[in-house]
Amino acid sequence: MWQLFQFPLCPFSRKVRLLLGEKGVGYELVRESPWARRDEFLDLNPAGQTPVMVHSDGTTLIDSHAICEYFEETVEKAPMIVGPAPARAEIRRLVHWFDERLHGEVVAPLMRERMTKRLVHRQSPDAGALREAMKQANAHLDYVDWLLDHRRWLGGPILSLADLAAAAQLSVADYLGGLDWRGHEQTRSWYSVMKSRPAFRPLLSERMEVIGPPAHYDKPDF
Amino acid sequence: MWQLFQFPLCPFSRKVRLLLGEKGVGYELVRESPWARRDEFLDLNPAGQTPVMVHSDGTTLIDSHAICEYFEETVEKAPMIVGPAPARAEIRRLVHWFDERLHGEVVAPLMRERMTKRLVHRQSPDAGALREAMKQANAHLDYVDWLLDHRRWLGGPILSLADLAAAAQLSVADYLGGLDWRGHEQTRSWYSVMKSRPAFRPLLSERMEVIGPPAHYDKPDF
Ligand SMILES: N[C@@H](CCC(=O)N[C@@H](CS)C(=O)NCC(=O)O)C(=O)O
Ligand SMILES: N[C@@H](CCC(=O)N[C@@H](CS)C(=O)NCC(=O)O)C(=O)O
Repeated sequence: MWQLFQFPLCPFSRKVRLLLGEKGVGYELVRESPWARRDEFLDLNPAGQTPVMVHSDGTTLIDSHAICEYFEETVEKAPMIVGPAPARAEIRRLVHWFDERLHGEVVAPLMRERMTKRLVHRQSPDAGALREAMKQANAHLDYVDWLLDHRRWLGGPILSLADLAAAAQLSVADYLGGLDWRGHEQTRSWYSVMKSRPAFRPLLSERMEVIGPPAHYDKPDF
Repeated sequence: MWQLFQFPLCPFSRKVRLLLGEKGVGYELVRESPWARRDEFLDLNPAGQTPVMVHSDGTTLIDSHAICEYFEETVEKAPMIVGPAPARAEIRRLVHWFDERLHGEVVAPLMRERMTKRLVHRQSPDAGALREAMKQANAHLDYVDWLLDHRRWLGGPILSLADLAAAAQLSVADYLGGLDWRGHEQTRSWYSVMKSRPAFRPLLSERMEVIGPPAHYDKPDF
């Protein structure tokens, strides 16, 4: 049995959970707050970051990219890095785009201003930083609109890890009230389809203590 | 024929070049300075980042992780993500560790202070930022020493992409005078072996305009 060390708003853990859900891999959630820098967790992962997966046979997997490639290699069901080599490269390009750029420009600042400052530092968010993150969010939604004007799914003709990575990051931004969906109809209907997938439902029902999501957050129709 | 868009001190391009060298894949270098934000380059890669690879048949590969996985999948020679699935996950964990943490804590600040500020902004480096990067560099060298106390190569019993990723980042830090090798004998002898590999030689002979490396930089014995 696998254990997944994570917290409800960790977007990289959400990507892993979406993949495990699509593939039908069972796991147990273990709550880990990386900001607590727990000694036993640092012994497990010197980076001190979630997600980490540990199997009862002792296998330890660290870093969401390594974890996703692992399950892609070992579980045949629901392949998510698919097609000929250039198509697979395009999927991996987008995964890193969403995990680095969408995360770094939008999700990480929202998490810092609306989650860490509140939970850990008991400070109020910086209005300028929030405004900037929401401006960047709009540019990212424009790019996803553009992708969907050219393709059925984000990475190409079929559902792939690129969709899971984007949905994972966007769902955390949406929980934290950072997305204004007006004017992004393509992305909105793609995201509505993503939200309806059985793999996504459990994530949308979880809550982070103290911080609540906006009313539309877990509704497939929004 | 492949073209590789890069500049001499881009560590992610260096990782790709080490992989292509080991695998014997030919390519032509195209000089690209991402800070110039050239329109044609932004059309190629919306992230505006190096490395990008373009084949004469039109195939375009973006992001060093996607590029490395592509050549790992398509070229059998010199496999660099090797072993059973958990060993492959450990290699990919380390690649992301070096590309995110060693890069973010050491190489990126050194590049900003000693390269971008000089070339682009014509400013002097910030002494405090340099000191902090060199302190972090020491902790990273300690971690590599520790890995080498437990393993023949960084990722396990054989040479892997983890070694190439680490050597690529460290070589840029070393060029920029950010590494103090004293007290890191394990890492020093591993790096000396890496420097002697034919794939590494061409990189070590290239220079970035205006900025020169320290005398020991390209010597396998240092
Ligand atoms: N490259 C890692 C990034 C993971 C990551 O940034 N996790 C965040 C939580 S969302 C974390 O643990 N941050 C705490 C820290 O960096 O100290 C992955 O893909 O798994
Ligand atoms: N995830 C990318 C990162 C590439 C990257 O950060 N490249 C740097 C040069 S070393 C760059 O182009 N920076 C310019 C920018 O980010 O605007 C990869 O692995 O290829």
